[in-house]
Amino acid sequence: MSTAKRMDLLGSETAFAVSAEAASLASTGTKIYPFHLGDINLPTPNSVVNAAKTAIKAGKTGYCPAPGIPELREALAKDVGSARGLSYDINNVSIQPGGKPSIGKYIAAMMEKGDVVLYPNPGYPIYESQIEFYGGIACPYGYINTNDGLRLDFTAIEEGIEKGAKHIFYNNYNNPTGASSPDEEIERLAKLVIDNNMFLISDDAYFDTLYEGNPKSIASLPGMYERTLTMYTFSKKFAMTGWRLGGAIGPKEVIEQITRLNVNMESCTTHFIQHAGVAGLNAPKSETQNILDKLQGRRDILVEILNSIEGVEAHMPEAGFYVFPKITELMARTGFTDVEEFRKVVLKETGVSFCGRHHFGRPLDNETDFYIRLAFSGISKNDLEEGMEKFKNWIKSRSK
Amino acid sequence: MSTAKRMDLLGSETAFAVSAEAASLASTGTKIYPFHLGDINLPTPNSVVNAAKTAIKAGKTGYCPAPGIPELREALAKDVGSARGLSYDINNVSIQPGGKPSIGKYIAAMMEKGDVVLYPNPGYPIYESQIEFYGGIACPYGYINTNDGLRLDFTAIEEGIEKGAKHIFYNNYNNPTGASSPDEEIERLAKLVIDNNMFLISDDAYFDTLYEGNPKSIASLPGMYERTLTMYTFSKKFAMTGWRLGGAIGPKEVIEQITRLNVNMESCTTHFIQHAGVAGLNAPKSETQNILDKLQGRRDILVEILNSIEGVEAHMPEAGFYVFPKITELMARTGFTDVEEFRKVVLKETGVSFCGRHHFGRPLDNETDFYIRLAFSGISKNDLEEGMEKFKNWIKSRSK
Repeated sequence: MSTAKRMDLLGSETAFAVSAEAASLASTGTKIYPFHLGDINLPTPNSVVNAAKTAIKAGKTGYCPAPGIPELREALAKDVGSARGLSYDINNVSIQPGGKPSIGKYIAAMMEKGDVVLYPNPGYPIYESQIEFYGGIACPYGYINTNDGLRLDFTAIEEGIEKGAKHIFYNNYNNPTGASSPDEEIERLAKLVIDNNMFLISDDAYFDTLYEGNPKSIASLPGMYERTLTMYTFSKKFAMTGWRLGGAIGPKEVIEQITRLNVNMESCTTHFIQHAGVAGLNAPKSETQNILDKLQGRRDILVEILNSIEGVEAHMPEAGFYVFPKITELMARTGFTDVEEFRKVVLKETGVSFCGRHHFGRPLDNETDFYIRLAFSGISKNDLEEGMEKFKNWIKSRSK
Repeated sequence: MSTAKRMDLLGSETAFAVSAEAASLASTGTKIYPFHLGDINLPTPNSVVNAAKTAIKAGKTGYCPAPGIPELREALAKDVGSARGLSYDINNVSIQPGGKPSIGKYIAAMMEKGDVVLYPNPGYPIYESQIEFYGGIACPYGYINTNDGLRLDFTAIEEGIEKGAKHIFYNNYNNPTGASSPDEEIERLAKLVIDNNMFLISDDAYFDTLYEGNPKSIASLPGMYERTLTMYTFSKKFAMTGWRLGGAIGPKEVIEQITRLNVNMESCTTHFIQHAGVAGLNAPKSETQNILDKLQGRRDILVEILNSIEGVEAHMPEAGFYVFPKITELMARTGFTDVEEFRKVVLKETGVSFCGRHHFGRPLDNETDFYIRLAFSGISKNDLEEGMEKFKNWIKSRSK
């Protein structure tokens, strides 16, 4: 029995492998400082938990419609719409078992074999994996490190468009870089998408985790409503990563095709969890604000500590859970030329576990700097500080 | 924005459309007698529900490993193994959000484009849909109606093998026909699979719903362990259709590939629900026996009523929730030549809602008889009797 050829094209989310590596080390008694995964060590809000229990009791344990229960589709249409100044209804929403499923489903439904698809790299590695699995040409664009933070590499985007790109994944409030786009960047991107008759998939996983001010979606720009599929997840905002609840929001024609794939792949998303999702969307803002406040506290400390280390440069992420420091000088000083090797040695010798830039897409030709990603969502403030202390001591001991 | 060509190859589960049609009629005030869907109107056992609540409280709300939590993989390996006299371990199990996901994932992982794949028709329509979606040649085999029940059409199976079939879907305790294989039929099928170096996907959705005696799996036959992937679901046995929990069990090499697809498609199956699954597998047998007893009572009444109708021939299903009566004579007597038209008129005029044979695969060339499928899992005993009374009266009024 041999594996089908198409599986050679399938990538992975190697951050999960780092998780497994850390867990294996933990089982030998080593204390692990988990900066590797965007999981959340905070409880899911009570309103969500209680609604799940009530729904089970009320017998919401049988099948429900493939695109989701009407109540949740309606609530999500309203929530996503009002946060973006747009009007969506139930026909614009297909509920999914998580944020991730929309990636492969969009590609399967809308990307023709051989289509060129732009995607951020560094970025969530599943874009690249799914584009290639379904026979598309994955065309990466990176970020340029400026004093104001990381900025989209428009040269790469324009090169992709010249190659005929028809689709573009865009992840404002980016994982892993933490980059967010100023208005002029979003406007420039929207103009390119419209002028070149492209379609954009806006991965809004971290849209609702902006720490200050109001988040902005490219879907809100004139001409973009009909060209944008928004990927929504309950995972981050509501600390529901393991519940698996999300949705695709966009033009009815795209949503209908995505739902056809749901009928084939999962029948439906867990019934009673959808009622819990409705409760979350209707809950007082304080419940999710509590989560954000805790995360913001950790972020501030982590960025401060990182920037206090010689040879480390970290931008302050405006949203999300990730810091993506440049460690080029630190690597040189500690005698490393390979981030994966650096990562493994740090993990083994300190228990501090993080990901490298290479976990977020194949490094690009023009890259000369080294980066790592530290998530602060799955580690307590105390352990964060203790872990960083160990990291600093390790650096001291290794510095030449 | 046009849909990708591959979507033209994608089928559907049209039973869900019947569900929607019935729901729409219900919203106008018509009482519906739901015989159309294999959903279960009985509560999920307490041990499962309580374990879910406990797991949420214990914080099992974050990500878990893509192939499932070790506890559930182990418990399922043990349960599936011991019921089949086989030895499986954690590496033979990949947890899935339902029974259905294993169909597409097996095909994506193991079926080469252009492979011939045998599948039962009438049968679960997603086999056909997923084979064709991934570019395989879907090669149907039907059933032959005998006095002892429906029997596999080995002529069709052997024709498929002559065409070079490499994979075969097999659904003992079949949906929609209710057919189960006597020993000699399983043995004959196993011999063909082994002699022709094929791989078999055993859809065991109804394996644990056999009303009397011990169910038999083709995986138990000599030489079949390494050639069988078992599709397991918690949906039916535990009345958990809307929870979305199942698993693929089989050779490690196949399981590893399936799990790679999980990493890409869902990250993981809902974390706390997996703990509920463990509790279900460890619960006293009485909890699931209660469910089976209720279903058996409904089955006996339904088959008796159906066979009391002139022109209807119904076999007694040994497992599962479905009766698949031949209604060729009844159709003639009531003046119908098309099952879909018959179904729609009955639904509209009586509220009795069921599926037709055509909801379970494209009818084969050699078919001359008409069949419908009645599920008895989603309707109370009283409504079942009341609905059948209405159906009989309608027949009387329409008979020529």
